[in-house]
Amino acid sequence: MPVSPQSYTRIVYAQPTKGLIDVKTFRAEEVPFDLKPGADEVVVRIDYLSLDPAMRLWINDGDNEFNYTAPVQVGQTMRGIGLATVIEAGENSGFSVGDHVSGTVGVTEYNTVKASTLTKIDLSERSQLLDFIGPLGHPGITAYIGLFDIGQIKAGETLVVSGAAGAVGSLVCQLGKDKGAKVYGTVGSAEKCKYLEEDVGVVKALNYKSPTFREDFVREFGKIDVFFDNVGGEILDFALTRLNMHARVVLCGSISSYTSEAVPFKNFSHVFFHRARVEGFSLIDQGHRFADARAYLAEKVAQGALKSKYHILEGIEEVPMAINMLFRGENNGKLVVKIAHD
Amino acid sequence: MPVSPQSYTRIVYAQPTKGLIDVKTFRAEEVPFDLKPGADEVVVRIDYLSLDPAMRLWINDGDNEFNYTAPVQVGQTMRGIGLATVIEAGENSGFSVGDHVSGTVGVTEYNTVKASTLTKIDLSERSQLLDFIGPLGHPGITAYIGLFDIGQIKAGETLVVSGAAGAVGSLVCQLGKDKGAKVYGTVGSAEKCKYLEEDVGVVKALNYKSPTFREDFVREFGKIDVFFDNVGGEILDFALTRLNMHARVVLCGSISSYTSEAVPFKNFSHVFFHRARVEGFSLIDQGHRFADARAYLAEKVAQGALKSKYHILEGIEEVPMAINMLFRGENNGKLVVKIAHD
Repeated sequence: MPVSPQSYTRIVYAQPTKGLIDVKTFRAEEVPFDLKPGADEVVVRIDYLSLDPAMRLWINDGDNEFNYTAPVQVGQTMRGIGLATVIEAGENSGFSVGDHVSGTVGVTEYNTVKASTLTKIDLSERSQLLDFIGPLGHPGITAYIGLFDIGQIKAGETLVVSGAAGAVGSLVCQLGKDKGAKVYGTVGSAEKCKYLEEDVGVVKALNYKSPTFREDFVREFGKIDVFFDNVGGEILDFALTRLNMHARVVLCGSISSYTSEAVPFKNFSHVFFHRARVEGFSLIDQGHRFADARAYLAEKVAQGALKSKYHILEGIEEVPMAINMLFRGENNGKLVVKIAHD
Repeated sequence: MPVSPQSYTRIVYAQPTKGLIDVKTFRAEEVPFDLKPGADEVVVRIDYLSLDPAMRLWINDGDNEFNYTAPVQVGQTMRGIGLATVIEAGENSGFSVGDHVSGTVGVTEYNTVKASTLTKIDLSERSQLLDFIGPLGHPGITAYIGLFDIGQIKAGETLVVSGAAGAVGSLVCQLGKDKGAKVYGTVGSAEKCKYLEEDVGVVKALNYKSPTFREDFVREFGKIDVFFDNVGGEILDFALTRLNMHARVVLCGSISSYTSEAVPFKNFSHVFFHRARVEGFSLIDQGHRFADARAYLAEKVAQGALKSKYHILEGIEEVPMAINMLFRGENNGKLVVKIAHD
């Protein structure tokens, strides 16, 4: 049974930044433990934090209408999605001490969280805890809704995934393959190409840093029915020239543009001429689809159709600079930070 | 009862062109009348031809994958949509001599046409013949499918229409207004602004040639729920900066890009960040929706909710150079050419 400590560490947003996060963007604060749950709250010990590209967006200027959600304010504990254990439960929270939960728990070792924002994790023999910030968590639900609801992928179609070795991308590849699509991916290293082709099982993966990337893309991938985009920028713009009639372009992420200016798009007119559909989405709007997504994903995990690779760091102080690893493509697998000491 | 003439004139595609149509692009040919219908065909006398921006696309290179349909080949009669009268009917055509029809009849005074490609016109007291290349014809069906099926407009939403004084645009404005949307338009002259505000009844129309167009757009239109685009290019790019969350951008036409190079888009990232949907469409794919569209439009015409203005030229020789009027914005109302002599 977890016990309350004397003090704990939290990561506070300290100073706005342009581009990548620097050493002054956040600060670690050790504070006395004084957390008490309200009637509809729980106090949790954070076990694992998920590092997501969206974290960079959460600290954009308050004026920036491009935020998914209300921005984190200077002085606040940084927002973060993770896995946690309930150490004290409010009387109307519906949770019990010892429950495993997932949700927006914050970049901190302990926190008080509204119970209604958390999901109880039912560990089975067929799943491991980390799956709940992987295929059974927000990356899996994102992949499911993006590929099926927005992308409307069908068996036999050509699916191209950018950022294909990422947490969401690698799940999209596997869901597409399982559905009978011909799956291709773009990534940022030869090592990731190998991972996608050998472990994930895509038909072909290409490194966008290769000087022959565009010729290779045309030759290897053919025309695209669904382009599942995690990167934005020049790769997305080029992909627009490769659309089949009635193609769907799923705008899931735009990691290339979170830390730099947007590039001009030369090929927008292809959307019109190919009677294609381009659609952005966020889980924020999709709560009504979570139950279906979770049921489908749990079944696929149980079948062994969805594999995940985790890149695990340790210690809450690692979080701020580790966010940059996502933008540099330095992670190999879903990037998580183990917070609670064993 | 119409009778066959000794000879007739047809407009033949003579020579590829870049940009606007010139005097060598087409030639008029007078040919002896030797038309006989096959069993499933009719011979028609063309009464009115509709001039549509898509005509410029139909004579693009055969290699150009941006064609809506197979390109017209040099030496062939130019493709054209119009109203016609059956003068001889094949035995299995389902038509009778004297029937009024609409369809792709060609830019010619007479033609042999597959009966299955034609629609019989049932003139009522509530409609005039020209309505069948206006609100009850392809412009009306385009407006209906684009605004309702693709755009999913709802009462109270803000609808901005580009090319709003055009054949499709002015119908979109009226359908939107009838549905309870707040409707705004962009056009290319002060005269068209006046027409839209006073006759069509939009809240506000703006001339894109005004030096204060962008400031005016921001101030007068507010944020957009549905942008119905007929023009493409810089106006579309700018409109992307004005999207509400979950906006729909209906790509119906791109008249600014049919005769010139596509401009780069600076604001594509707004689609992602506003979780918006951008979708191109063409009637080619929408045959299953025509019956619903026609029934709805006929009801609205009968109610007086859909008005149309026609800009009528006379004589088949006018067709080639008149196509350019669409690209120069010189037409006031739906541009049609009266072909048959009374």
